[in-house]
Amino acid sequence: MDHSNLKLNEEKVFKDPVHRYVHVQDQIIWDLIGTKEFQRLRRIKQLGTTYLTFHGAEHSRFNHSLGVYEIVRRIVDDVFQGRPEWNEDERLLSLCAALLHDLGHGPFSHSFEKVYHTDHEQFTRSIILGVTEVHAVLHKVGADFPQKVADVIGKTYPNKLVVSLISSQIDADRMDYLQRDAYFTGVSYGHFDMERILRVMRPTEDQVVFKATGMHAVEDYIMSRYQMYWQVYFHPVTRSAEVILTKILQRAKALYQRDYQFKSYPTHFISLFEEKVSLEDYLKLDEPVILYYFQMWEEEEDIILQDLCFRFMNRKLFKYVEFDPSKQYKLLGQLEELFREAEIDPDYYLAVDSSSDLPYDFYRPGEEEERLPINLLMPNQERHELSRESAIVEAISGKRRTDHKLYYPRELLLDDSKHREVKNRILSILEKH
Amino acid sequence: MDHSNLKLNEEKVFKDPVHRYVHVQDQIIWDLIGTKEFQRLRRIKQLGTTYLTFHGAEHSRFNHSLGVYEIVRRIVDDVFQGRPEWNEDERLLSLCAALLHDLGHGPFSHSFEKVYHTDHEQFTRSIILGVTEVHAVLHKVGADFPQKVADVIGKTYPNKLVVSLISSQIDADRMDYLQRDAYFTGVSYGHFDMERILRVMRPTEDQVVFKATGMHAVEDYIMSRYQMYWQVYFHPVTRSAEVILTKILQRAKALYQRDYQFKSYPTHFISLFEEKVSLEDYLKLDEPVILYYFQMWEEEEDIILQDLCFRFMNRKLFKYVEFDPSKQYKLLGQLEELFREAEIDPDYYLAVDSSSDLPYDFYRPGEEEERLPINLLMPNQERHELSRESAIVEAISGKRRTDHKLYYPRELLLDDSKHREVKNRILSILEKH
Amino acid sequence: MDHSNLKLNEEKVFKDPVHRYVHVQDQIIWDLIGTKEFQRLRRIKQLGTTYLTFHGAEHSRFNHSLGVYEIVRRIVDDVFQGRPEWNEDERLLSLCAALLHDLGHGPFSHSFEKVYHTDHEQFTRSIILGVTEVHAVLHKVGADFPQKVADVIGKTYPNKLVVSLISSQIDADRMDYLQRDAYFTGVSYGHFDMERILRVMRPTEDQVVFKATGMHAVEDYIMSRYQMYWQVYFHPVTRSAEVILTKILQRAKALYQRDYQFKSYPTHFISLFEEKVSLEDYLKLDEPVILYYFQMWEEEEDIILQDLCFRFMNRKLFKYVEFDPSKQYKLLGQLEELFREAEIDPDYYLAVDSSSDLPYDFYRPGEEEERLPINLLMPNQERHELSRESAIVEAISGKRRTDHKLYYPRELLLDDSKHREVKNRILSILEKH
Amino acid sequence: MDHSNLKLNEEKVFKDPVHRYVHVQDQIIWDLIGTKEFQRLRRIKQLGTTYLTFHGAEHSRFNHSLGVYEIVRRIVDDVFQGRPEWNEDERLLSLCAALLHDLGHGPFSHSFEKVYHTDHEQFTRSIILGVTEVHAVLHKVGADFPQKVADVIGKTYPNKLVVSLISSQIDADRMDYLQRDAYFTGVSYGHFDMERILRVMRPTEDQVVFKATGMHAVEDYIMSRYQMYWQVYFHPVTRSAEVILTKILQRAKALYQRDYQFKSYPTHFISLFEEKVSLEDYLKLDEPVILYYFQMWEEEEDIILQDLCFRFMNRKLFKYVEFDPSKQYKLLGQLEELFREAEIDPDYYLAVDSSSDLPYDFYRPGEEEERLPINLLMPNQERHELSRESAIVEAISGKRRTDHKLYYPRELLLDDSKHREVKNRILSILEKH
Repeated sequence: MDHSNLKLNEEKVFKDPVHRYVHVQDQIIWDLIGTKEFQRLRRIKQLGTTYLTFHGAEHSRFNHSLGVYEIVRRIVDDVFQGRPEWNEDERLLSLCAALLHDLGHGPFSHSFEKVYHTDHEQFTRSIILGVTEVHAVLHKVGADFPQKVADVIGKTYPNKLVVSLISSQIDADRMDYLQRDAYFTGVSYGHFDMERILRVMRPTEDQVVFKATGMHAVEDYIMSRYQMYWQVYFHPVTRSAEVILTKILQRAKALYQRDYQFKSYPTHFISLFEEKVSLEDYLKLDEPVILYYFQMWEEEEDIILQDLCFRFMNRKLFKYVEFDPSKQYKLLGQLEELFREAEIDPDYYLAVDSSSDLPYDFYRPGEEEERLPINLLMPNQERHELSRESAIVEAISGKRRTDHKLYYPRELLLDDSKHREVKNRILSILEKH
Repeated sequence: MDHSNLKLNEEKVFKDPVHRYVHVQDQIIWDLIGTKEFQRLRRIKQLGTTYLTFHGAEHSRFNHSLGVYEIVRRIVDDVFQGRPEWNEDERLLSLCAALLHDLGHGPFSHSFEKVYHTDHEQFTRSIILGVTEVHAVLHKVGADFPQKVADVIGKTYPNKLVVSLISSQIDADRMDYLQRDAYFTGVSYGHFDMERILRVMRPTEDQVVFKATGMHAVEDYIMSRYQMYWQVYFHPVTRSAEVILTKILQRAKALYQRDYQFKSYPTHFISLFEEKVSLEDYLKLDEPVILYYFQMWEEEEDIILQDLCFRFMNRKLFKYVEFDPSKQYKLLGQLEELFREAEIDPDYYLAVDSSSDLPYDFYRPGEEEERLPINLLMPNQERHELSRESAIVEAISGKRRTDHKLYYPRELLLDDSKHREVKNRILSILEKH
Repeated sequence: MDHSNLKLNEEKVFKDPVHRYVHVQDQIIWDLIGTKEFQRLRRIKQLGTTYLTFHGAEHSRFNHSLGVYEIVRRIVDDVFQGRPEWNEDERLLSLCAALLHDLGHGPFSHSFEKVYHTDHEQFTRSIILGVTEVHAVLHKVGADFPQKVADVIGKTYPNKLVVSLISSQIDADRMDYLQRDAYFTGVSYGHFDMERILRVMRPTEDQVVFKATGMHAVEDYIMSRYQMYWQVYFHPVTRSAEVILTKILQRAKALYQRDYQFKSYPTHFISLFEEKVSLEDYLKLDEPVILYYFQMWEEEEDIILQDLCFRFMNRKLFKYVEFDPSKQYKLLGQLEELFREAEIDPDYYLAVDSSSDLPYDFYRPGEEEERLPINLLMPNQERHELSRESAIVEAISGKRRTDHKLYYPRELLLDDSKHREVKNRILSILEKH
Repeated sequence: MDHSNLKLNEEKVFKDPVHRYVHVQDQIIWDLIGTKEFQRLRRIKQLGTTYLTFHGAEHSRFNHSLGVYEIVRRIVDDVFQGRPEWNEDERLLSLCAALLHDLGHGPFSHSFEKVYHTDHEQFTRSIILGVTEVHAVLHKVGADFPQKVADVIGKTYPNKLVVSLISSQIDADRMDYLQRDAYFTGVSYGHFDMERILRVMRPTEDQVVFKATGMHAVEDYIMSRYQMYWQVYFHPVTRSAEVILTKILQRAKALYQRDYQFKSYPTHFISLFEEKVSLEDYLKLDEPVILYYFQMWEEEEDIILQDLCFRFMNRKLFKYVEFDPSKQYKLLGQLEELFREAEIDPDYYLAVDSSSDLPYDFYRPGEEEERLPINLLMPNQERHELSRESAIVEAISGKRRTDHKLYYPRELLLDDSKHREVKNRILSILEKH
């Protein structure tokens, strides 16, 4: 039986609030969705701690993964099909890569990766190539098919056109999450005319290009991206929750390393603490498990772990002020000193968080983070790089914007029980304006 | 300090995808939202297992509670304010009752209540009146204020106008959840012109009435409700997940009662099994905790508990067929017999689930479930019951619709390892059509 | 050259607020849209006088015609294509019939047809078959093609499946106008899940049927239709404008018949007055022409024509009261008498208008207005008539609802200059409640 | 009776697709809407010829005027009310100015003003101050009230805060039309979070300022504006229709001046041709009148007038190519020469049209077109000009973008009947790329 072309008896649909419906015609796609590794994505939020700022942002990576799949399906079935530059044999590969591109994400990936040095991309690869239900389904298509899927996701697949569908400055991944995150948070940014963008996409031998008649829809997408980054993804309240989460993870590890006796033993965390996480261990990590521990740890003896967990679970977040690392470097040292004086451990209660984004970049070969430019297909068939044609994109191209904030527990500093004077000094430094 | 009128320095807003913004002006409301009992609602899904059918339905009761609050706020501040029938002193009471009306919900309430006989309404009362952060905030308004809030939610408050804002056939609770659940699932039902309905609401001494000019918006609301019940809330796939969930809860209790040695001891469940759940126990129950146990129980020795948990976590649900209890009563007994022959325990693998709804009812005094009718305010100031004026509502008034389905594990019946013949007989009975 | 399959070099799109985009791939469709007879539909409003009630309702029949075309295009290209019951040779025919189905509409058709006995269906036929640009384009496909298009629109084409796409109780015409009229008026009715309905449509030898899994979307469509009729199409203010319009047309004709000397001679109206309107005459009639005359006639000597035109142009409409023709027949005669006494001509200033609708009907062979029922395709391949499966549709099936109103010029009756007493008697009869 | 505070017995609402509802509480506003001068705006399209490009753009200035009124009503009633910088006595003045700001617009104002040198702002003033129904209503508030309304609209009113509500770089006028035009055309641009912008507006003594927390919503508005200008307002197809319209107006005037005998005498145009248009004449000009003449002129003897009118009525527009006036100045002269050789009058059949926009400008005192900047209110109460805070606005501030196109009748140049060679030369120049 040729699984690469095996169709369902009848198309299945998922009702999707962003794309109306997600359509599945292929048996392999249907089977992948049913695997336990893919279902696990239901238990991992797409936007991590953002729900503490935008209460609607409770949607999972399962949602988003279906959405990316659906966008790629529309591109290959409605736009690329029949064009000479498109190889129909790479259709199923593209769909699988789209569906599975986030498979290795764990709970609150950003903070976990920072503290425990896990790598979700590496785990995506492991799940696809390891002893998993996902692997078994992919293997039915062909012995080398799992490797191909992993290569597309890992950007090493030879046909860069396929890679660019899910990894480029305007790909199905970004197009889905901008719209989906806007929908669930309820913000008015994040809207752009995706139908138009899809219609002007053209396959070429090494990337997707965009007919110049659709340039303004692409501009609008770039602007949406810019706004979503600064209004939603880098929201300072969300970053406050991330700071606390990171500190919990650090504290738990530090306690473990010094042989602290946990009332609730962190079984699921041991391999993380020791930085030797097996695939099996990893797949057991999901948000309910993490939140279970945090709830239990609200009752630990260790006052710092207990307090940080209480803060995270009950949204008692840190306050923040602007911080300029170039000018205020010394200040940070001074504050740490004062925190110690006030018996508030600065390792856990004082943190600088920086967010930084480059909304669009033209191609700079050889630079650390090469980004393929968005190319427009002009009426005369030339390709022009987007920022050359769009004044508005040109204005923001290659301009990195960075925001630094200093986080601290304001109510601890207001607490009158002791160290009133030093706390006042701290407050007068932090909130002098 | 008079907390009943204490305003925030500056209005706070929450971005809400359904109502655009939720506005908070009162210190008490702000403080209630910040309590740990209210924040706990973030960890309980509004629609329980529905996300396994509609992947967008991952929103929490926290979301919905803010929405109900916002609708009542608009009613009292934009529509009722200044009208002689409205007592401005009951404004804050109405807002608090709206915000807190679902406070006692636990994870997957429906199934838990069925198996463990908990009562979320009772817990709402306990949280409001017990030793909680919520109680402390409410108490600042006045010593009798918590009781009043509990009475409004419990429908025993003397001023039925206030009660009817959150408990009637057209109240802020229903108006929020129909719209919110439609938004998150993405279905096209659930839309009605709430702005119009709010504008035609009029306070009277014992209930809210609706100016007859808005009758069609009310009709549309009734139809939305009807469609949402049958398309979303009673979806047979969701009910399949509920069946499995219920069976897990039953099995865990049965094992506990027979002194089964759990590898993962069900600490959080003990008081549930013994049906003496304290408020403190209850507040620790949230969905992450339950899902943590289900994940752990996938590795229990007991094959039934293990299998059911695996099914729930990985969406391997039961299939279903129509069932007519009046005609097929005997059949059920016969199937149970055959299941036992096939060594599939019918207590856990064969279930009838019934859903039943009355989309609207006029008033039938003395009947078991009295429902206050929706009254229209005619141009001549008479009140007419809705179904008297609306042909379309009249057509569905008082007509209960019930749906019965029989659930079973199809892939176990297809399994060839043993009992092939009896399984074939079962399948031929179930799927003969 | 085979025009039936001639494709444009590149697909053209129209931005459409309801369907996002209207896609044109066929040269014939593109050419038809460019004809002057089709462009003329830009100068005829879809909803006649409704813009005087809902100010957004200024959209033209051009809009709607493109929309109906687009819906049929989606049905035949995305749903029917490749199914054995569908004859691909009838694709272009279906598209042309959809595009042109309203071609013969004139300005304010309803009132013109009532007074001057024109027939827009007859003119649709004449434009398609006569010496027109439309005919020339259609003729390129084949000598008998214009006749076929006219037959589909006229419902005499042998393949009833094709006919049912644009003329049945659930067709592309209705699906477009419900959504479009809801969009432009801004009302919250008129929404239903068209994408779902399209996906469950199945061609059969004599009509379109609907897979039973989509029943609720069909129910929702029926309810939308019901609400749009009563909330928008039969709105009493719109009917007031229609009454005045009808009276203008009557008055102009009466004046012409009695050789009244018009200051602005009604050149465009002569053939209407004489009820021998040629195709050429008819095609010159559009709303700007009619409104030009009404503006000019605001300065006619005839006080009735002048006043009615002033009313229509400046929205000084008649007021209305409920009227029950079965009980109040005598009253009408009495009022006419009193109007004459008050020197207000009842032929122009007193009118009963009745609106009546049957939201859905099952099949009643032999009755005056046979309507084909909506049939559901059950899982066992049987066809069941909709109202047999849907309790809510059953409740309203075959139930005609009629509304009668009596219209009169209230401010004339309040005018104190003369006949105060008889006017008071009139007012006391009309507004006694 | 004090008309400035006279309220309607019951609030009236208009269903509006953009703002959901437009609310009217004041008798004066209600009466103004009922005047014939205001009702006349129903017969003038908001976007002139844009409907020939975007078929949904058929909405009138009546629509838009209600929308601007509603936005100002929300600002003054929901945001400004009660603030010390806001003078409640200027509430009604602000509402009237908002409602009436476009009152003097005629049909296709842009082209008419260009050819006949009318001035819609002057006519707005005349209608407000002259012998009109509008004046009579305004006069009821006070003898100097009409003058005040005219001054606000004319920007000469002393309190610049009131002026800035309807005339600034971010005012109710622009906020309404961006959203409304986006809605009716169906484009995905034009959306921004107006509710947020309204909430951060603060009155000051000389203008509206915006709390810095809302900066991103303001940025988004600026971007919407930019996109709407280039995607909708300056669309080259719309400009083609404008070119033809302008040429019709020029030709008719030229014919009149040379005593051409019109078959349909241009009664309504005489005062335009002679550039002495009285208020009475002006008020009779609406789009139906203009379109009536164009239809009649399709049958004039003059071949140019006839052809141009046919083109406009039936959307047979000119084609266009890019044109660079700085480099191609000579080319234009050369083309005119060749057109004459080909017997195609270049005065009517060859035209350069330029569109130019400055999406946002900071303040440049003394420059020809002073624009007040948008000022943000920082947390420390300082005011910062928007482009100082917003990188993205800074990038486009003060940068004028201009687009030039050359329009010509392509099908005349393809016509083979004569002058084939010179036409080929023209085509090779125009379409050489």
